[in-house]
Amino acid sequence: MSADKIDFDIVGKSVRRRDAFEKVTGEAVFSTDVKLPGMLYAKVLRSPYPHAKIKKIDISKAEQLPGVKAVAYYGNTPRIKFNTSATMTFTVPHLEPVLDQYVFDDIVRYVGDEVAAVAAVSEEIAQQALKLIEVEYEELPAVYDPLEAMKEEAPHIHTGCKEGKNIPGDIVKIDMGDVEQGFAESDLVIEEMFKVPVQKQVQMETQAAVAQVSREGDITVWSTTQTPHPTRMILSRAFGVPHSKIRVLNPPYVGGGFGVRIGCSAKAEPIAVALAMLAKRPVKVVYTREEDFIASDTRHGGYVWAKLGVKKDGTFHALDLKGVLNAGAYCSFSCETPGVLGAMTLSVYRIPHQKYFGHSVYTNTTPAGAMRGFGNPQGIFALESVVDMVAEKLNIDPLELRLKNIMQVGDPWCLPYPCGATGMAECIEKGAKSIGWDRRGKLNKPGATKVRGIGVAIGSHVSNSWPFCVDYDNAYVTIQQDGSVQVACGVPDIGTGTTTTLPQLAAEELGVRFDMVNMTFGDTASTPFDIGSHASRTLYAAGTAVVAAAKDAKQQVLEYAADLLDVSAEKLDMKDSEVFVAQGSDEKRISLKEIAYHAHLRNKQFIGVGRIVPPNSPTWEAHFAEVEVDLQTGQVKVIKLVGAHDVGKAINPAICEGQIEGGLAMGLGYALSEEIRYNDKGKQQNKSISTYFLPTAEDMPEVEAILVESNDPSGPFGAKGVGETGLVPTAPAIANAVYNATGIRFTEIPLTEERVFFALRNNKKS
Amino acid sequence: MSADKIDFDIVGKSVRRRDAFEKVTGEAVFSTDVKLPGMLYAKVLRSPYPHAKIKKIDISKAEQLPGVKAVAYYGNTPRIKFNTSATMTFTVPHLEPVLDQYVFDDIVRYVGDEVAAVAAVSEEIAQQALKLIEVEYEELPAVYDPLEAMKEEAPHIHTGCKEGKNIPGDIVKIDMGDVEQGFAESDLVIEEMFKVPVQKQVQMETQAAVAQVSREGDITVWSTTQTPHPTRMILSRAFGVPHSKIRVLNPPYVGGGFGVRIGCSAKAEPIAVALAMLAKRPVKVVYTREEDFIASDTRHGGYVWAKLGVKKDGTFHALDLKGVLNAGAYCSFSCETPGVLGAMTLSVYRIPHQKYFGHSVYTNTTPAGAMRGFGNPQGIFALESVVDMVAEKLNIDPLELRLKNIMQVGDPWCLPYPCGATGMAECIEKGAKSIGWDRRGKLNKPGATKVRGIGVAIGSHVSNSWPFCVDYDNAYVTIQQDGSVQVACGVPDIGTGTTTTLPQLAAEELGVRFDMVNMTFGDTASTPFDIGSHASRTLYAAGTAVVAAAKDAKQQVLEYAADLLDVSAEKLDMKDSEVFVAQGSDEKRISLKEIAYHAHLRNKQFIGVGRIVPPNSPTWEAHFAEVEVDLQTGQVKVIKLVGAHDVGKAINPAICEGQIEGGLAMGLGYALSEEIRYNDKGKQQNKSISTYFLPTAEDMPEVEAILVESNDPSGPFGAKGVGETGLVPTAPAIANAVYNATGIRFTEIPLTEERVFFALRNNKKS
Repeated sequence: MSADKIDFDIVGKSVRRRDAFEKVTGEAVFSTDVKLPGMLYAKVLRSPYPHAKIKKIDISKAEQLPGVKAVAYYGNTPRIKFNTSATMTFTVPHLEPVLDQYVFDDIVRYVGDEVAAVAAVSEEIAQQALKLIEVEYEELPAVYDPLEAMKEEAPHIHTGCKEGKNIPGDIVKIDMGDVEQGFAESDLVIEEMFKVPVQKQVQMETQAAVAQVSREGDITVWSTTQTPHPTRMILSRAFGVPHSKIRVLNPPYVGGGFGVRIGCSAKAEPIAVALAMLAKRPVKVVYTREEDFIASDTRHGGYVWAKLGVKKDGTFHALDLKGVLNAGAYCSFSCETPGVLGAMTLSVYRIPHQKYFGHSVYTNTTPAGAMRGFGNPQGIFALESVVDMVAEKLNIDPLELRLKNIMQVGDPWCLPYPCGATGMAECIEKGAKSIGWDRRGKLNKPGATKVRGIGVAIGSHVSNSWPFCVDYDNAYVTIQQDGSVQVACGVPDIGTGTTTTLPQLAAEELGVRFDMVNMTFGDTASTPFDIGSHASRTLYAAGTAVVAAAKDAKQQVLEYAADLLDVSAEKLDMKDSEVFVAQGSDEKRISLKEIAYHAHLRNKQFIGVGRIVPPNSPTWEAHFAEVEVDLQTGQVKVIKLVGAHDVGKAINPAICEGQIEGGLAMGLGYALSEEIRYNDKGKQQNKSISTYFLPTAEDMPEVEAILVESNDPSGPFGAKGVGETGLVPTAPAIANAVYNATGIRFTEIPLTEERVFFALRNNKKS
Repeated sequence: MSADKIDFDIVGKSVRRRDAFEKVTGEAVFSTDVKLPGMLYAKVLRSPYPHAKIKKIDISKAEQLPGVKAVAYYGNTPRIKFNTSATMTFTVPHLEPVLDQYVFDDIVRYVGDEVAAVAAVSEEIAQQALKLIEVEYEELPAVYDPLEAMKEEAPHIHTGCKEGKNIPGDIVKIDMGDVEQGFAESDLVIEEMFKVPVQKQVQMETQAAVAQVSREGDITVWSTTQTPHPTRMILSRAFGVPHSKIRVLNPPYVGGGFGVRIGCSAKAEPIAVALAMLAKRPVKVVYTREEDFIASDTRHGGYVWAKLGVKKDGTFHALDLKGVLNAGAYCSFSCETPGVLGAMTLSVYRIPHQKYFGHSVYTNTTPAGAMRGFGNPQGIFALESVVDMVAEKLNIDPLELRLKNIMQVGDPWCLPYPCGATGMAECIEKGAKSIGWDRRGKLNKPGATKVRGIGVAIGSHVSNSWPFCVDYDNAYVTIQQDGSVQVACGVPDIGTGTTTTLPQLAAEELGVRFDMVNMTFGDTASTPFDIGSHASRTLYAAGTAVVAAAKDAKQQVLEYAADLLDVSAEKLDMKDSEVFVAQGSDEKRISLKEIAYHAHLRNKQFIGVGRIVPPNSPTWEAHFAEVEVDLQTGQVKVIKLVGAHDVGKAINPAICEGQIEGGLAMGLGYALSEEIRYNDKGKQQNKSISTYFLPTAEDMPEVEAILVESNDPSGPFGAKGVGETGLVPTAPAIANAVYNATGIRFTEIPLTEERVFFALRNNKKS
């Protein structure tokens, strides 16, 4: 890609988002808004038990309620195993995907698991009908903690696990050098276990889908999915219908993603399709916020062990990392997440001897799946806490220690793609300046009841998920007859500005005016295959496909113009929608509008197809926090958060900053307040926005997003992914700041008032 | 294309139409059914005068009516001239399109012309508001007959006509040989003038459109158009918005076309867009049947002069043809139609000396535009009447005379594309057998009051409109990850079975199972540019693009499979969704499903793009009619109609037969009953289905559609167009049968009871 280009027309400009007007006026249409003639409304009966066998189920009374048009349960829906996550779609060639779900099953495995669903002419009638479904359960023993669930006496949640009791799929193992030898050669070894909570995405729009099944059996699904094409693949499997008979689309907007709907939107799509097939009418499923909490994938909680060996000069020498994550009741992305945890955590620093061992474990809790960061925040919390512990032991400034050990271009690492550029040092330096690192240690007066501290943590992330798993894009770029441009790419816009930034790339590559480029997106009928919006990949990887398609179309235009201008195509270029001789006189110029219409009159449209070899590239980020801890109450208040990010090249700086700021907010919640808690019956205790403590606008500190541009050689115009990095090292930066303020090392987050209060009282580790 | 293929898997099979279930159950969605949140309903104020200047218009009272959200008129809508027909899109490189319409103008040119339109929360309120619009008209002189409208004293309907008063665009002139010398060398010359009526398409669904304009200015229009991409071009011009910001789609069905919505659906789209822009809400326009009659393009009425010179052995030697058609108030397709009249009529027979001169003339009547046959039925009525007159004069059997003179492959003709195959002789022979030609002349007993006659007429037509005008297609064929296939082509399905037959072509070309192929269509967002469904071109020309795309995708599949099977791609073929060594052992086989998923896991989808050099090919047809004329009442009853058609290759025979049968019905109406009549104030006298005598099921005689397959070398698998030919020679076949029964030569149609009664009474020409 043109990573060496420096004179940009539209790349690098914070043009207004294309969805801005519609969203601020409330006119943007989301799945929740879709209404079709004859459409029915669905409600889902969910298990009250964490683990049970359905001995008997009688749907007849519900079916007889006037207004009820269909009742779906395991007895009248396909008995084909699938996986609501896109695992099946994304799997790497040598791995078997874990397919452990039915649309409905006769065993329920967590409180909230789907037992049956009703489609009726109103939500009220559907809700009423749920009460008329008679179910006889046989309770089974349940287990909630992953370490418990691996024990011999634990119940089987799924059988057939090959790697150990309740372990889905494969254990991830990474090995570099000889870690035992590494520790033997180290001057200092620090080892610690960390516990990380279950976080929830709490995206604005709850899971939703509307399904329509034609008489011919063609299925159309409007939904909140982040991945229309993979979702089509999943539905194809679940219902045994060819892909080409299924259309999945966003309508067109999606109220946030954060990973919660990579693949299906929990079970919204399969339930809507199953009911639409039974009722022979369109069916809409919209999860309540409570359903979204209890029955929609969460971030993985679990345990991370980190053991770091260093030389006395601070050189990192050996790292042994282990992760055991709580998969919840179904696999979802639980095979992939431990892999990302390991690979990302291992690739921040140059460490010659490295080892990782990680996996998930089924428990009788809400399934854990993809969430922004995808295992990385869990691992980095552990690593970056240990790094600070090393710095203290060696009495080295934490910044210096990090700068000494950070990965450089060309360093050996465990990742299967190159590091083409790194702006990590610049991130650390700029972030330190912003937070006022030199004030650290001089913040508190003796005897203060509110003490301040400054902390840092760094991290990396992917810009795509290839080659960890299948992950590619295609795109069309067609030149219309007036020289305007239509980009068609299957990625949705889940709120990240994709429909603005991908046209920016196309306009730049083509050399046409930005206002002449529009985009078709989020629809399997309009676009070639695309793996969707996730893994920080949309701008970076789908953008690469769009640029490739634009390049293809441009070449066709230049070749056509070459004939018109009687000059060789190599001598031509296009800028501001005008083709001209690159290094020549003013005479040979022709507008794209003229070229396109000239070609039209001769039966030709310029159609570019973008097919890519998927790239990947590390992002780099340094987060800094200044906190104030109330020694009397335990309250931690973040005063300022700084996220300095190597974004490669900021295609739209305002959007990059927005992504980072949003990430910092989510990282703040992860550090301080967010956690799904279960009682001893497996029930979530805080399944509403009012009881799950998401940071609000009021909780936000001063935030600064700093963009560092390293010009990645693989990304479109030098760009890297920026969707997830914003929260990767936020929690350890805050925890390190709390340590700096209080001298207490927390190995478990969130740092709730209660946890900090007791730790302060006991004056020891939490 | 694979015209020499004979061993077909799916081509040639009458598979059930994909739209059948939805249509018979009433579940198919048409534009009329589209309903959007907040949608408004529009009503149009139409001129009561045939020609007037709007001196003053006051919309304020209408705007103040509660529920009214917008009133559009010439004062608040774009003053950009355009043409509702796709003329602008279709124009040939050297011709300037005639742009003579505004969305609204301050001059009205026919009774029904648009004065203003209201968008309101209900149809009732919109209707009420129309009455509150105060308009002061200054009446202008009007003219209704094209011959009158050319005279010096006639009023100017449009100024700036370069070829003569009220003549839009260019006069069409065709010259071959020396026609004067030809007549001098002829033994017999017959000359006659014919008058043809204004026929109406009376398609099932009236003109309709729903427009939505986003805050960002992006326009989406669901409509009844036969040509989504060209309609996008027209709206782009009319509203000054780039193509890429406009999406035009069918929703997805269209209740018939017959040419009435090539381009816009009358003014439904522009009115809906104009109102949606003003009201900032979606607006729906559905024409009433009366509006569809008075304000939506008709077939051209007018005059045709035919002068045929023959040798005494019956060899045709010279033909001079002239056409003057009634354009009505706006140009629409009035430049193209006289051209098709001439070119088609001149290319049925080998005639060394030929000449044609034709044009349209503006009058103050409803605009005439495209209708099935597009000028050809008008010309053929004249020619085939004259041919029968020659046969009688020379006492040669009309069949023999025709067989002697019909065009053969390789004959010189005026058309700019080759005749690759002709089954005309076979059509004549098979049709004659079916009608019982040998009974002709032996049908009536002396003194019978009901007399029978048998007639024949033949004709030809196009399979596309290139190179008469711009006319091309593109298509995508993508192989999904399970080996199913998605065809994307911008043509709509206007009821002709396109969504069944194009997938048949793709399945055949690829070698995959038909049930694995689905089609995306009728949507500018989903498809590359395509000129649409008209000119008998959809299966033939869009089909060529689909086959090209399939070929491209197949080649990619075979090359990929070649690597997997370790064999060269040339040795591989695909059938029944399986790739195998064409002439080898059973061992090297692999299913498309396996190949597609294997490629998917390696980040590859097979994407075929079909771009075509547009072909064209003549169709050939012979129609036969047996009639019974009641000598006392003048009623003509058709006993049997036979249409024998060279369809090249019947891709789906049942659909071909359906097209021909429908054409015969329309030809029957053209011959016997259908005619829009105006009073002396320019008002249509029969603007409803109950007064416009469309043949009903009860009026239909025994009908036989005979398919002759000549295997056209240019068409997909040998196919030609079959959309229009079904009515081209029907009227002269019936008129010739009436002559055979009564001895009266009618030079004007329709042969209404009244016209025949008076002719019988006067015992002379009508």
